[in-house]
Amino acid sequence: MGIEIRPATTADRDAIWEIFREVIEPGDTYAFDPAMPREDALAFWMQPAAQVYVAERDAKILGSYFLKPNQPGLGAHVANAGYMVTPTARGLGIGRAMGEHSLTEARRLGFRAMQFNFVVATNEPAVKLWKQLGFEIVATLPGAFRHLSRGYVDAYVMYRSLVDG
Amino acid sequence: MGIEIRPATTADRDAIWEIFREVIEPGDTYAFDPAMPREDALAFWMQPAAQVYVAERDAKILGSYFLKPNQPGLGAHVANAGYMVTPTARGLGIGRAMGEHSLTEARRLGFRAMQFNFVVATNEPAVKLWKQLGFEIVATLPGAFRHLSRGYVDAYVMYRSLVDG
Repeated sequence: MGIEIRPATTADRDAIWEIFREVIEPGDTYAFDPAMPREDALAFWMQPAAQVYVAERDAKILGSYFLKPNQPGLGAHVANAGYMVTPTARGLGIGRAMGEHSLTEARRLGFRAMQFNFVVATNEPAVKLWKQLGFEIVATLPGAFRHLSRGYVDAYVMYRSLVDG
Repeated sequence: MGIEIRPATTADRDAIWEIFREVIEPGDTYAFDPAMPREDALAFWMQPAAQVYVAERDAKILGSYFLKPNQPGLGAHVANAGYMVTPTARGLGIGRAMGEHSLTEARRLGFRAMQFNFVVATNEPAVKLWKQLGFEIVATLPGAFRHLSRGYVDAYVMYRSLVDG
């Protein structure tokens, strides 16, 4: 596959922003305002509490993900993560490679579980991928996402234990 | 009951911090690090996106809650809120009064639903109150809270629609 995943550096900010901008623009997968400014986007994605990674193929950055505690202090043993793949590179296995990488990293960092707070129900490739990687839908949030072309659609909370196998 | 609920002002910061400190100290209801510094606590509770209120009785502040969007942009029509009552004033109906007030305020502000992301399952008075106010448990997050005296316990996601009755 030739996909390499490595920690992001400040030199990757332009590439990450380009992916972020393209992914949020249609308003179909992430709740971020499609007009979110670059600095706000990078401040969120590369926040101090997060580990940030990029996925490269042929030395080109095609995806990025962050990994961080989902809650502070007494909930910080459950990880949260977000993943983006540049639209022109979909279907190449980059999301799956980042998902698998993030589960390994989360275990290495000592997290006991991973939780996604807001998987848009109509984002079927994402829902399918997370199920294949062991996540379960633990909640359906009715109409919680205002899909820019479909209107109000559900979002899922998905959860996966990282302990006892 | 004589409970008055009003918007908080910067003059209420000391009272809010005192309640916050007392509520998080036992590590049994909120994920915040029990040693969270004052400035971090107030920066979270009184964040720019939040409406903040205090509950008074006999001109003494006994509780506070915030109301804010649970997600940015395309998820900002679902509210999130957090509530704290000073431990010595429990059982006086202050939590219930704030809960009812927050539902009215959320509707007034145009929110379509309200979501609690992390209700500790062993916090039975809170779970009971939110059920009485129309919230449903939509997810159980296994072991997601590290209760300081009981160890890992579940947390709930609770949700309530604010439209169509």
